[in-house]
Amino acid sequence: MSETHRLAEQLVADLVAQNRTLTTVESCTGGLVFVTMTDIAGSSAVMERGFITYSNQAKQDLVGVAEETLIAHGAVSEEVAAEMAVGGCRHSTDGAIAVGLTGIAGPGGGSSAKPVGLVYIAVADTARCTVIKHHFDGDRTAVRSAAVAAALAHISDFIG
Amino acid sequence: MSETHRLAEQLVADLVAQNRTLTTVESCTGGLVFVTMTDIAGSSAVMERGFITYSNQAKQDLVGVAEETLIAHGAVSEEVAAEMAVGGCRHSTDGAIAVGLTGIAGPGGGSSAKPVGLVYIAVADTARCTVIKHHFDGDRTAVRSAAVAAALAHISDFIG
Repeated sequence: MSETHRLAEQLVADLVAQNRTLTTVESCTGGLVFVTMTDIAGSSAVMERGFITYSNQAKQDLVGVAEETLIAHGAVSEEVAAEMAVGGCRHSTDGAIAVGLTGIAGPGGGSSAKPVGLVYIAVADTARCTVIKHHFDGDRTAVRSAAVAAALAHISDFIG
Repeated sequence: MSETHRLAEQLVADLVAQNRTLTTVESCTGGLVFVTMTDIAGSSAVMERGFITYSNQAKQDLVGVAEETLIAHGAVSEEVAAEMAVGGCRHSTDGAIAVGLTGIAGPGGGSSAKPVGLVYIAVADTARCTVIKHHFDGDRTAVRSAAVAAALAHISDFIG
Protein backbone atom coordinates (compact mmCIF):
# COMPACT_ATOMS: atom_id res chain seq x y z
CA MET A 1 0.00 0.00 0.00
CA SER A 2 1.46 3.35 -0.99
CA GLU A 3 1.98 6.30 1.34
CA THR A 4 -0.59 8.29 -0.66
CA HIS A 5 -3.16 5.50 -0.24
CA ARG A 6 -2.52 5.52 3.52
CA LEU A 7 -2.96 9.31 3.60
CA ALA A 8 -6.25 8.98 1.70
CA GLU A 9 -7.47 6.29 4.08
CA GLN A 10 -6.72 8.47 7.10
CA LEU A 11 -8.34 11.50 5.47
CA VAL A 12 -11.53 9.56 4.71
CA ALA A 13 -11.66 8.48 8.37
CA ASP A 14 -11.07 12.05 9.59
CA LEU A 15 -13.76 13.50 7.31
CA VAL A 16 -16.22 10.81 8.42
CA ALA A 17 -15.44 11.65 12.08
CA GLN A 18 -16.06 15.36 11.41
CA ASN A 19 -19.13 14.64 9.26
CA ARG A 20 -17.75 16.76 6.42
CA THR A 21 -17.52 16.20 2.68
CA LEU A 22 -14.64 17.07 0.36
CA THR A 23 -15.20 18.64 -3.05
CA THR A 24 -12.36 18.62 -5.56
CA VAL A 25 -11.69 21.25 -8.22
CA GLU A 26 -8.83 19.91 -10.31
CA SER A 27 -6.90 21.20 -13.25
CA CYS A 28 -3.39 19.73 -13.72
CA THR A 29 -4.27 16.55 -11.79
CA GLY A 30 -7.29 15.89 -14.02
CA GLY A 31 -9.37 14.19 -11.33
CA LEU A 32 -6.60 12.19 -9.64
CA VAL A 33 -7.33 13.57 -6.16
CA PHE A 34 -10.92 12.31 -6.39
CA VAL A 35 -9.78 8.98 -7.86
CA THR A 36 -7.25 8.53 -5.05
CA MET A 37 -9.82 9.29 -2.34
CA THR A 38 -12.39 6.97 -3.90
CA ASP A 39 -9.88 4.13 -4.11
CA ILE A 40 -10.86 3.80 -0.46
CA ALA A 41 -13.97 1.64 0.02
CA GLY A 42 -16.63 3.56 1.94
CA SER A 43 -15.37 6.94 0.73
CA SER A 44 -18.79 7.72 -0.74
CA ALA A 45 -19.75 8.97 2.74
CA VAL A 46 -17.42 11.95 2.28
CA MET A 47 -16.77 12.21 -1.47
CA GLU A 48 -19.82 13.57 -3.18
CA ARG A 49 -18.83 15.73 -6.16
CA GLY A 50 -15.81 16.95 -8.07
CA PHE A 51 -15.12 19.40 -10.86
CA ILE A 52 -12.41 18.88 -13.45
CA THR A 53 -11.72 22.36 -14.79
CA TYR A 54 -8.97 21.79 -17.32
CA SER A 55 -9.61 24.86 -19.49
CA ASN A 56 -10.00 28.49 -18.47
CA GLN A 57 -13.60 28.41 -19.70
CA ALA A 58 -14.34 25.40 -17.51
CA LYS A 59 -12.88 27.18 -14.47
CA GLN A 60 -15.31 30.04 -15.11
CA ASP A 61 -18.36 27.94 -16.04
CA LEU A 62 -18.13 25.22 -13.40
CA VAL A 63 -17.00 27.04 -10.24
CA GLY A 64 -17.16 30.73 -11.10
CA VAL A 65 -13.48 31.71 -11.35
CA ALA A 66 -13.50 35.32 -12.57
CA GLU A 67 -12.27 36.03 -16.10
CA GLU A 68 -10.41 39.08 -14.72
CA THR A 69 -8.46 36.88 -12.30
CA LEU A 70 -7.44 34.55 -15.13
CA ILE A 71 -6.32 37.48 -17.26
CA ALA A 72 -4.50 39.30 -14.47
CA HIS A 73 -2.68 36.35 -12.91
CA GLY A 74 -2.90 33.44 -15.37
CA ALA A 75 -4.54 30.08 -14.76
CA VAL A 76 -1.55 28.82 -12.77
CA SER A 77 -1.56 31.29 -9.89
CA GLU A 78 -2.29 31.58 -6.21
CA GLU A 79 -5.35 33.70 -6.98
CA VAL A 80 -6.94 31.20 -9.38
CA ALA A 81 -6.25 28.27 -7.03
CA ALA A 82 -8.02 30.18 -4.26
CA GLU A 83 -11.02 31.01 -6.45
CA MET A 84 -11.24 27.35 -7.52
CA ALA A 85 -11.39 26.16 -3.89
CA VAL A 86 -13.80 28.89 -2.78
CA GLY A 87 -15.96 28.27 -5.86
CA GLY A 88 -15.91 24.54 -5.15
CA CYS A 89 -17.36 25.20 -1.68
CA ARG A 90 -20.02 27.46 -3.12
CA HIS A 91 -21.05 24.77 -5.62
CA SER A 92 -21.33 22.05 -2.97
CA THR A 93 -23.74 20.94 -0.30
CA ASP A 94 -23.44 22.65 3.08
CA GLY A 95 -20.35 22.08 5.16
CA ALA A 96 -18.10 20.92 2.35
CA ILE A 97 -14.39 21.59 2.28
CA ALA A 98 -12.97 22.11 -1.20
CA VAL A 99 -9.50 21.68 -2.65
CA GLY A 100 -8.37 23.47 -5.81
CA LEU A 101 -5.27 22.49 -7.79
CA THR A 102 -3.74 24.35 -10.72
CA GLY A 103 -0.28 23.79 -12.11
CA ILE A 104 1.95 22.79 -14.98
CA ALA A 105 2.36 19.02 -15.26
CA GLY A 106 4.46 19.21 -18.44
CA PRO A 107 6.09 18.28 -20.68
CA GLY A 108 4.88 21.47 -22.44
CA GLY A 109 3.44 24.66 -21.03
CA GLY A 110 6.33 25.74 -18.82
CA SER A 111 8.19 29.05 -18.85
CA SER A 112 10.98 30.57 -16.78
CA ALA A 113 8.42 32.39 -14.63
CA LYS A 114 6.13 29.34 -14.39
CA PRO A 115 8.19 26.20 -14.92
CA VAL A 116 6.95 22.62 -15.29
CA GLY A 117 6.26 21.28 -11.80
CA LEU A 118 4.80 24.51 -10.41
CA VAL A 119 1.51 23.69 -8.65
CA TYR A 120 -0.70 25.83 -6.42
CA ILE A 121 -2.98 23.98 -4.01
CA ALA A 122 -5.76 25.81 -2.17
CA VAL A 123 -8.07 24.46 0.51
CA ALA A 124 -11.17 26.34 1.60
CA ASP A 125 -14.35 26.15 3.56
CA THR A 126 -16.88 28.92 3.98
CA ALA A 127 -14.75 30.56 6.70
CA ARG A 128 -11.19 30.51 5.33
CA CYS A 129 -8.86 29.61 2.48
CA THR A 130 -5.17 28.69 2.49
CA VAL A 131 -2.95 28.36 -0.59
CA ILE A 132 0.43 26.62 -0.80
CA LYS A 133 2.87 26.96 -3.71
CA HIS A 134 4.81 23.85 -4.66
CA HIS A 135 7.49 22.90 -7.12
CA PHE A 136 7.64 19.22 -7.94
CA ASP A 137 10.41 17.46 -9.86
CA GLY A 138 10.03 14.79 -12.49
CA ASP A 139 7.88 13.99 -15.48
CA ARG A 140 4.15 14.48 -15.99
CA THR A 141 3.20 11.38 -13.99
CA ALA A 142 5.56 12.26 -11.14
CA VAL A 143 4.30 15.85 -10.92
CA ARG A 144 0.67 14.73 -10.86
CA SER A 145 1.30 12.06 -8.19
CA ALA A 146 3.27 14.47 -6.02
CA ALA A 147 0.52 17.07 -6.32
CA VAL A 148 -2.08 14.57 -5.12
CA ALA A 149 0.00 13.58 -2.10
CA ALA A 150 0.61 17.25 -1.25
CA ALA A 151 -3.10 18.03 -1.61
CA LEU A 152 -4.09 15.25 0.80
CA ALA A 153 -1.53 16.51 3.33
CA HIS A 154 -2.77 20.08 2.92
CA ILE A 155 -6.40 19.04 3.49
CA SER A 156 -5.39 17.02 6.58
CA ASP A 157 -3.62 20.08 8.03
CA PHE A 158 -6.60 22.28 7.19
CA ILE A 159 -9.14 20.13 9.01
CA GLY A 160 -6.71 19.69 11.93
CA MET B 1 2.72 1.16 -21.99
CA SER B 2 -0.65 -0.39 -21.14
CA GLU B 3 -3.40 -1.19 -23.63
CA THR B 4 -5.61 1.46 -21.99
CA HIS B 5 -2.87 4.08 -22.40
CA ARG B 6 -2.59 3.17 -26.10
CA LEU B 7 -6.38 3.46 -26.48
CA ALA B 8 -6.30 6.89 -24.82
CA GLU B 9 -3.48 8.03 -27.09
CA GLN B 10 -5.41 6.97 -30.19
CA LEU B 11 -8.60 8.59 -28.92
CA VAL B 12 -6.82 11.91 -28.26
CA ALA B 13 -5.47 11.81 -31.83
CA ASP B 14 -8.92 10.98 -33.26
CA LEU B 15 -10.62 13.78 -31.31
CA VAL B 16 -7.94 16.27 -32.40
CA ALA B 17 -8.48 15.18 -36.03
CA GLN B 18 -12.24 15.70 -35.68
CA ASN B 19 -11.79 18.94 -33.73
CA ARG B 20 -14.07 17.70 -30.95
CA THR B 21 -13.79 17.77 -27.19
CA LEU B 22 -14.74 15.04 -24.72
CA THR B 23 -16.59 15.80 -21.49
CA THR B 24 -16.66 13.15 -18.76
CA VAL B 25 -19.47 12.58 -16.27
CA GLU B 26 -18.20 9.94 -13.88
CA SER B 27 -19.65 8.16 -10.90
CA CYS B 28 -18.10 4.77 -10.06
CA THR B 29 -14.81 5.63 -11.81
CA GLY B 30 -14.43 8.83 -9.78
CA GLY B 31 -12.60 10.76 -12.49
CA LEU B 32 -10.39 7.95 -13.80
CA VAL B 33 -11.51 8.38 -17.42
CA PHE B 34 -10.40 12.01 -17.37
CA VAL B 35 -7.15 11.12 -15.58
CA THR B 36 -6.40 8.41 -18.15
CA MET B 37 -7.04 10.73 -21.09
CA THR B 38 -4.92 13.49 -19.57
CA ASP B 39 -2.02 11.12 -18.97
CA ILE B 40 -1.45 11.85 -22.66
CA ALA B 41 0.63 15.00 -23.21
CA GLY B 42 -1.22 17.43 -25.46
CA SER B 43 -4.64 16.12 -24.40
CA SER B 44 -5.66 19.62 -23.26
CA ALA B 45 -6.66 20.27 -26.90
CA VAL B 46 -9.58 17.86 -26.47
CA MET B 47 -10.11 17.49 -22.71
CA GLU B 48 -11.70 20.59 -21.33
CA ARG B 49 -14.03 19.74 -18.46
CA GLY B 50 -15.29 16.83 -16.42
CA PHE B 51 -17.94 16.26 -13.77
CA ILE B 52 -17.54 13.78 -10.95
CA THR B 53 -21.06 13.04 -9.83
CA TYR B 54 -20.61 10.52 -7.06
CA SER B 55 -23.86 11.20 -5.18
CA ASN B 56 -27.41 11.38 -6.49
CA GLN B 57 -27.55 15.06 -5.53
CA ALA B 58 -24.40 15.75 -7.55
CA LYS B 59 -25.91 13.99 -10.57
CA GLN B 60 -28.87 16.36 -10.35
CA ASP B 61 -26.94 19.54 -9.50
CA LEU B 62 -24.03 19.22 -11.91
CA VAL B 63 -25.56 17.79 -15.08
CA GLY B 64 -29.31 17.87 -14.52
CA VAL B 65 -30.19 14.19 -14.06
CA ALA B 66 -33.89 14.16 -13.12
CA GLU B 67 -34.81 13.16 -9.58
CA GLU B 68 -37.69 11.09 -11.02
CA THR B 69 -35.25 9.06 -13.12
CA LEU B 70 -33.10 8.35 -10.05
CA ILE B 71 -36.17 7.28 -8.05
CA ALA B 72 -37.72 5.18 -10.84
CA HIS B 73 -34.58 3.36 -12.03
CA GLY B 74 -31.87 3.88 -9.39
CA ALA B 75 -28.53 5.60 -9.88
CA VAL B 76 -27.03 2.52 -11.53
CA SER B 77 -29.27 2.22 -14.57
CA GLU B 78 -29.30 2.67 -18.32
CA GLU B 79 -31.58 5.69 -17.94
CA VAL B 80 -29.33 7.55 -15.50
CA ALA B 81 -26.19 6.79 -17.55
CA ALA B 82 -27.94 8.28 -20.59
CA GLU B 83 -29.02 11.40 -18.70
CA MET B 84 -25.47 11.83 -17.39
CA ALA B 85 -24.02 11.77 -20.91
CA VAL B 86 -26.72 13.99 -22.41
CA GLY B 87 -26.41 16.39 -19.46
CA GLY B 88 -22.64 16.43 -19.89
CA CYS B 89 -23.08 17.59 -23.50
CA ARG B 90 -25.54 20.25 -22.43
CA HIS B 91 -23.08 21.58 -19.84
CA SER B 92 -20.18 21.76 -22.30
CA THR B 93 -18.93 24.00 -25.03
CA ASP B 94 -20.38 23.40 -28.51
CA GLY B 95 -19.54 20.18 -30.32
CA ALA B 96 -18.54 18.20 -27.25
CA ILE B 97 -19.09 14.48 -26.94
CA ALA B 98 -19.82 13.29 -23.41
CA VAL B 99 -19.39 9.97 -21.67
CA GLY B 100 -21.38 9.00 -18.57
CA LEU B 101 -20.46 6.10 -16.30
CA THR B 102 -22.48 4.73 -13.41
CA GLY B 103 -21.91 1.39 -11.73
CA ILE B 104 -21.07 -0.57 -8.63
CA ALA B 105 -17.33 -0.83 -8.03
CA GLY B 106 -17.68 -2.71 -4.73
CA PRO B 107 -16.89 -4.10 -2.31
CA GLY B 108 -20.23 -2.89 -0.89
CA GLY B 109 -23.37 -1.71 -2.64
CA GLY B 110 -24.15 -4.78 -4.68
CA SER B 111 -27.42 -6.76 -4.76
CA SER B 112 -28.67 -9.74 -6.74
CA ALA B 113 -30.40 -7.41 -9.19
CA LYS B 114 -27.43 -5.04 -9.38
CA PRO B 115 -24.26 -6.94 -8.47
CA VAL B 116 -20.77 -5.54 -7.93
CA GLY B 117 -19.18 -5.04 -11.34
CA LEU B 118 -22.34 -3.82 -13.08
CA VAL B 119 -21.50 -0.63 -15.00
CA TYR B 120 -23.53 1.32 -17.55
CA ILE B 121 -21.59 3.47 -19.99
CA ALA B 122 -23.35 6.05 -22.16
CA VAL B 123 -21.88 8.21 -24.91
CA ALA B 124 -23.76 11.14 -26.38
CA ASP B 125 -23.53 14.18 -28.55
CA THR B 126 -26.35 16.55 -29.36
CA ALA B 127 -27.70 14.16 -32.03
CA ARG B 128 -27.65 10.71 -30.40
CA CYS B 129 -26.89 8.63 -27.31
CA THR B 130 -25.84 5.00 -26.96
CA VAL B 131 -25.68 3.04 -23.71
CA ILE B 132 -23.86 -0.25 -23.13
CA LYS B 133 -24.33 -2.49 -20.07
CA HIS B 134 -21.24 -4.24 -18.76
CA HIS B 135 -20.41 -6.69 -16.04
CA PHE B 136 -16.79 -6.64 -14.94
CA ASP B 137 -15.10 -9.18 -12.68
CA GLY B 138 -12.66 -8.51 -9.90
CA ASP B 139 -12.15 -6.11 -7.05
CA ARG B 140 -12.80 -2.37 -6.84
CA THR B 141 -9.59 -1.47 -8.68
CA ALA B 142 -10.17 -4.06 -11.40
CA VAL B 143 -13.77 -2.95 -11.97
CA ARG B 144 -12.77 0.71 -12.23
CA SER B 145 -9.89 -0.02 -14.64
CA ALA B 146 -12.05 -2.24 -16.83
CA ALA B 147 -14.76 0.43 -16.92
CA VAL B 148 -12.26 3.04 -18.12
CA ALA B 149 -10.98 0.77 -20.90
CA ALA B 150 -14.54 -0.03 -21.98
CA ALA B 151 -15.47 3.66 -21.95
CA LEU B 152 -12.55 4.56 -24.23
CA ALA B 153 -13.51 1.77 -26.64
CA HIS B 154 -17.14 2.90 -26.58
CA ILE B 155 -16.19 6.51 -27.34
CA SER B 156 -13.93 5.35 -30.20
CA ASP B 157 -16.77 3.37 -31.73
CA PHE B 158 -19.14 6.31 -31.28
CA ILE B 159 -16.93 8.79 -33.14
CA GLY B 160 -16.17 6.16 -35.82
